Amino acid sequence: MKAGSRFAATFACALIAGLTVTNTRGRAADALPSWNDGAAKQAIITFVQSVTSEGSGTFVSVADRVAVFDNDGTLWSEQPMYFQLAFAFDRVKALAPKHPEWKTTQPFKGVLENDLKAALAGGEQSVMEIMAASHAGVTTDEFTAAVTEWLKAARHPRFKRRYTELVYQPMLEVLAYLRANGFKTYVVSGGGAEFMRVFAEQAYGIPPEQIIGSRIKMQYTTRNGKAELLRLPQIDFIDDKEGKPIAINAVIGRRPIMAFGNSDGDFQMLEWTTSGSGPRFGLIVHHTDAEREWAYDRTSHIGQLIRGLDEAPKLGWTVADMKKDWNAIYPTEKP
Amino acid sequence: MKAGSRFAATFACALIAGLTVTNTRGRAADALPSWNDGAAKQAIITFVQSVTSEGSGTFVSVADRVAVFDNDGTLWSEQPMYFQLAFAFDRVKALAPKHPEWKTTQPFKGVLENDLKAALAGGEQSVMEIMAASHAGVTTDEFTAAVTEWLKAARHPRFKRRYTELVYQPMLEVLAYLRANGFKTYVVSGGGAEFMRVFAEQAYGIPPEQIIGSRIKMQYTTRNGKAELLRLPQIDFIDDKEGKPIAINAVIGRRPIMAFGNSDGDFQMLEWTTSGSGPRFGLIVHHTDAEREWAYDRTSHIGQLIRGLDEAPKLGWTVADMKKDWNAIYPTEKP
Repeated sequence: MKAGSRFAATFACALIAGLTVTNTRGRAADALPSWNDGAAKQAIITFVQSVTSEGSGTFVSVADRVAVFDNDGTLWSEQPMYFQLAFAFDRVKALAPKHPEWKTTQPFKGVLENDLKAALAGGEQSVMEIMAASHAGVTTDEFTAAVTEWLKAARHPRFKRRYTELVYQPMLEVLAYLRANGFKTYVVSGGGAEFMRVFAEQAYGIPPEQIIGSRIKMQYTTRNGKAELLRLPQIDFIDDKEGKPIAINAVIGRRPIMAFGNSDGDFQMLEWTTSGSGPRFGLIVHHTDAEREWAYDRTSHIGQLIRGLDEAPKLGWTVADMKKDWNAIYPTEKP
Repeated sequence: MKAGSRFAATFACALIAGLTVTNTRGRAADALPSWNDGAAKQAIITFVQSVTSEGSGTFVSVADRVAVFDNDGTLWSEQPMYFQLAFAFDRVKALAPKHPEWKTTQPFKGVLENDLKAALAGGEQSVMEIMAASHAGVTTDEFTAAVTEWLKAARHPRFKRRYTELVYQPMLEVLAYLRANGFKTYVVSGGGAEFMRVFAEQAYGIPPEQIIGSRIKMQYTTRNGKAELLRLPQIDFIDDKEGKPIAINAVIGRRPIMAFGNSDGDFQMLEWTTSGSGPRFGLIVHHTDAEREWAYDRTSHIGQLIRGLDEAPKLGWTVADMKKDWNAIYPTEKP
């Protein structure tokens, strides 16, 4: 749709709906150009207009305009494996010259031979060993440097592009639209907070203090008279399922009014968000586009989505159908 | 001192010091009227001017202007006992009618009879039982309501004023001065985050998401179809000593450039802050005024300060002498 006709359609819709456009920031139909006109797009806009219309009864103060977003599968892709796991595998390969024993020891042997089945045959224990080797034993500053280097060099196996180019253009528009309407946007992800902080500010416009994620334990240490935090090979907190509302409460101290997710790991975050009093909004990104991205839900080993799909209608959550609702997936395709 | 003569004195000082006033926000000698002229006040002002002077070589971008403040003994008083402990005792008393067995069981019997020695005779176990009874078994919303009610009704035993009136006027001025210069101000306290969030926004101008503190474990639960977080009687994290830099890193994801504390529980926070590269500032509030507040340091059972006093000169930290450096302690005394 051309800009002119989109504007005309928007204006007509607004007239039909009888909406009084009270300020320019609320009038944001064209703030979401990668969203096709439809129920999902309209639900976002209607909600934002309702909470920003002073004197409307549904008005929400700026301080309480908190929106939380899952990351993997909600803000960027998560197939064929979580991107952070790709980092872990690549880092094992990069560190292998210092660990000759890895050539003959699982799970490292499997990683080095690109035999993921062998690498992960040991289940959780294997994952923990790979995590410890790739994510721990370094200071926070050293870890940040390692992730930074990896993001520059690594390419996604299917798209042959940087991982940070595989963010969803429609969601970038939602983030910007919400911030333009006084919202504070947070990432709340099962991924590692220190991993995401390396790219989230540039990729999403979200600063480190608005990134909530899983954590490993840290040790306070002084080296050469300088205090450092050393990453230990032990899980401290998994920011998934019930962990998400708990972490949001611990860090933000307010219940969000909008939540966006894509898997059942996000269920409690959406449930807690939309259980509060006053206007509430929950949205699930449904991966339905095998051609432009991936199609998966109930039986997927990554981003499994069962309960969310079943209960969304009853709970009043919006389901965004990637194939139907998004006219662009990645920034390179934006209209 | 009258406002006119203070302005004249300030202006004269600036001339004598040969300071080039580069912008109105940096020119903040009179932003700290409750601080007597002296090394501590000058150190604060000099530091803020140095990091806000563009092109100075010591300039720090707004995003990195993070300042962290301990709460008890740094932003408000902590004698004769931590104010949160007073809340715990009062709450045990308020809940006692529902627990007739407390009349005959320690530590509750001691609390109810105002016999603190008996109440705390069981050491850590007693404290945990009092904490569990007073801080757990309720949702976050219910806890917030209980703290709100208490803060309205309770009066400090010595000053007969609300606890929230026992905040330090000179520190309120520092908070406001830093924010006016682009800093983000955080509380990082051994006290409970959910306790502090009830009053910190009004008392300090610091919103919930900038409050870092100790936490008890939470349980995600649904009641009558609504999701809630239930406070459990188990410690999740103690935000003290090494815990402070670890929590700052977990929540903020940046190393602060300014840190303010008053006890050895703040040592690592100041050490980590001032270990970073570029301009760094650490300040210790030294309680030296038994008449207007309290005088305590090396041998105190609350807010013990030994290492901080010993190492401050070597580490370049500023020590604010409450008696000499502050011409007002509480807002009611402000000039």
